[in-house]
Amino acid sequence: MKPVKKVIQFTDWDAALIEDATFEIAERHLEMEANVLRQARTQNYDSPYAFLNLPYDDALGQSVSRVAQATLALEPSMLIVIGIGGSNLGTKAVHDALNGIFYNELNATLKVYFADTTDPDMLTALVRIMETQLKQDRAVILNIVSKSGTTTETVANAALLLDLLKKYKKDSYHKYVVATTDENSKLWQVAQQEKFAALAIPANVGGRYSVMSAVGLFPLAMLGIDIKQLHEGARDITDSCLELSVEENPAARSATTIFGQYGKNIFIHNTFLFASELESLGKWYRQLVGESLGKEKNKAGRVVHVGITPTVAIGSTDLHSLAQLYLGGPYDTFTTFVTYASFATDITIPPAPELKSLDTNTQGLSLTHIMDAIARGVKVAYRNELRPFIAIELPEPSAYALGQFMQWKMIETVYLAYLLDLNPFDQPNVELYKRETRKILNHG
Amino acid sequence: MKPVKKVIQFTDWDAALIEDATFEIAERHLEMEANVLRQARTQNYDSPYAFLNLPYDDALGQSVSRVAQATLALEPSMLIVIGIGGSNLGTKAVHDALNGIFYNELNATLKVYFADTTDPDMLTALVRIMETQLKQDRAVILNIVSKSGTTTETVANAALLLDLLKKYKKDSYHKYVVATTDENSKLWQVAQQEKFAALAIPANVGGRYSVMSAVGLFPLAMLGIDIKQLHEGARDITDSCLELSVEENPAARSATTIFGQYGKNIFIHNTFLFASELESLGKWYRQLVGESLGKEKNKAGRVVHVGITPTVAIGSTDLHSLAQLYLGGPYDTFTTFVTYASFATDITIPPAPELKSLDTNTQGLSLTHIMDAIARGVKVAYRNELRPFIAIELPEPSAYALGQFMQWKMIETVYLAYLLDLNPFDQPNVELYKRETRKILNHG
Repeated sequence: MKPVKKVIQFTDWDAALIEDATFEIAERHLEMEANVLRQARTQNYDSPYAFLNLPYDDALGQSVSRVAQATLALEPSMLIVIGIGGSNLGTKAVHDALNGIFYNELNATLKVYFADTTDPDMLTALVRIMETQLKQDRAVILNIVSKSGTTTETVANAALLLDLLKKYKKDSYHKYVVATTDENSKLWQVAQQEKFAALAIPANVGGRYSVMSAVGLFPLAMLGIDIKQLHEGARDITDSCLELSVEENPAARSATTIFGQYGKNIFIHNTFLFASELESLGKWYRQLVGESLGKEKNKAGRVVHVGITPTVAIGSTDLHSLAQLYLGGPYDTFTTFVTYASFATDITIPPAPELKSLDTNTQGLSLTHIMDAIARGVKVAYRNELRPFIAIELPEPSAYALGQFMQWKMIETVYLAYLLDLNPFDQPNVELYKRETRKILNHG
Repeated sequence: MKPVKKVIQFTDWDAALIEDATFEIAERHLEMEANVLRQARTQNYDSPYAFLNLPYDDALGQSVSRVAQATLALEPSMLIVIGIGGSNLGTKAVHDALNGIFYNELNATLKVYFADTTDPDMLTALVRIMETQLKQDRAVILNIVSKSGTTTETVANAALLLDLLKKYKKDSYHKYVVATTDENSKLWQVAQQEKFAALAIPANVGGRYSVMSAVGLFPLAMLGIDIKQLHEGARDITDSCLELSVEENPAARSATTIFGQYGKNIFIHNTFLFASELESLGKWYRQLVGESLGKEKNKAGRVVHVGITPTVAIGSTDLHSLAQLYLGGPYDTFTTFVTYASFATDITIPPAPELKSLDTNTQGLSLTHIMDAIARGVKVAYRNELRPFIAIELPEPSAYALGQFMQWKMIETVYLAYLLDLNPFDQPNVELYKRETRKILNHG
């Protein structure tokens, strides 16, 4: 018997407080964009919407698995993902969600580290940890991830860590490096010359849409994540996200819901995740929104300064930090609640006679029950206070569930960009600070 | 010779783009509040502004140090801080900033964990780590922190972890528990009955203003932080923050600057910290702003729905996530940049002949130099684009610098509440969800 596939649930659409008229307008517009996406589904990696097709690419999964298996055969004790932004946020999101935030402390086999920025103290610590492993003759894998191959922080950190690797693996260092980059980038060429394993990112897949490519798949496969299930989850939600009817299309429906908030001058979108392990997933979505929808100009080139500020909150932690603002402050925030139907584990609160006087209504309950009661209480309060929200329930921490969630969010973002008349795939204004930084680096 | 005290630097006030008239109005108002604070400085813990005087309380520092020393004499291998919101955010902020984000992996002596929310998977991992220590007959310290003594998550987690402790320390478990709470709270009474060490929080010091009390001091002293220096830093900035002239008072000046943004419909305040270790400091400030300034009602009880949404970004990491939004999106965000003049360590990027083709102008430079160039480049871009900001330079990662920063921010928040006509010390709307959660817990 085939196991029942557990799908994510979308609820509380009515709590978003959007008028029917908004949906009628969106329906007419999004039907066009849904048709463009349907077309893109048939074009492999040739359209700007190439990311859509990554989960359908069996050859990709197989080639990543081959490289991962060959790399794992070196019996590494440490994997360092050298990459920033779109080059590590998706990996970190899935890893934290499924392996947990204490992974490194609980799993002696293969620890993972993320070298993103060039923080000297963080890198000093990382060098120390890496050198301890190398001194013990353990294998350390460097996964250099950069679409362009020339990201400042990534190249600096790669130079630093490669130098250390070479000290201990003078003649064989190339075996321990895996480059993930655009085919024919300068990094790709380096990988060829140096005999590093190289994994290609399709040209039309931008960093923030690349989690289903080798960018996410290689390190996740190394870390024991079922990347087939990640892809399968993404595939299984794609069809509904290409439905022409907004009502039957969860991506078009959530895009319309967020667009409706925008029309009511609600420019902050808070993703409120009720699990400590999901903070990185929130940060992955934060980049997707920030870069795809924060734009100086619309598609026609007119200056519009449009954008949604994405924020991430963790339940119940941040209720003790921001609930007062969320329930008492301005009506300027739309919230997407994300909860688990069940966690991987559970614990029942034992009777603690010593603490009996303190509380109270939690003894004998499970932690899942308490988290659920808090999340439900918050949603009731949001409804009572007319704070607009929708809610997503993930069935459980699984690659299949995350695949659904992430593919849904990427397609949602494309629809939302369409409604806001923006290009979801560029980030031209980033150049404004990079140019200044280059000037300073060149002239001191 | 006494060492020169390194003070934090406030720069780029002009980049906040606030009119002189705003400062003139603020000057008249804030002089009154500065006088109230000056008065409070003479009233020990008797005024609502009691937090001001914590850094001057030598007896507090001494009693905390005594308990910390007695606890360290048990040679513990693990400290678990059980607390949420104001009960752990300040501790985490200082610990991460000074001990680094890889502390647990680099320091075998005393590892630290934070049990805040009731996430089943997080708690399962924590129980596993704790039980491993107890099985090896190592000492594990539980620091239960709750002002009221009845916080749902804290009581549930305390019951769970105390139960485990008792299994291994049947007759001596009380030696391993330290309670930090209001004198005469129910938790205080439990501590007396059970012979737990107990540290008092002054009644007038609220959670989000409590980092300089035993709430922060005890765990930080356990973790090797120089709590005297933390207090000294806080003391050394307090005088200037009580100056009657806004120009000479950095807290009144930054409060006025943020208030001026509010008048221009800029309701998002982004704290952009250029160090991975400072994310928790940003989250500490996020609570301070969220709870102190997000209010349904003003002081007179009129419904106003005022609030500033605090966000936290990390440089350079989040430049690769949100710079496009910050530089291209709506003009709805004010930014406070926080940088270090120098980090605790530094590394020079070695020549990496293999990667020569990729870049770059970073070989031969230090990581500090690169971070500095990126931060400077960003500030130039913000100026060019008229994105309002101010900048703070911390001299180095030190308890003294953090003491200054945190005391400045707490006083700034009080002034800002005064300008916005809000009570900075209450959080009445939190009850809206807690009530609903209690109903669900009681009735299923």
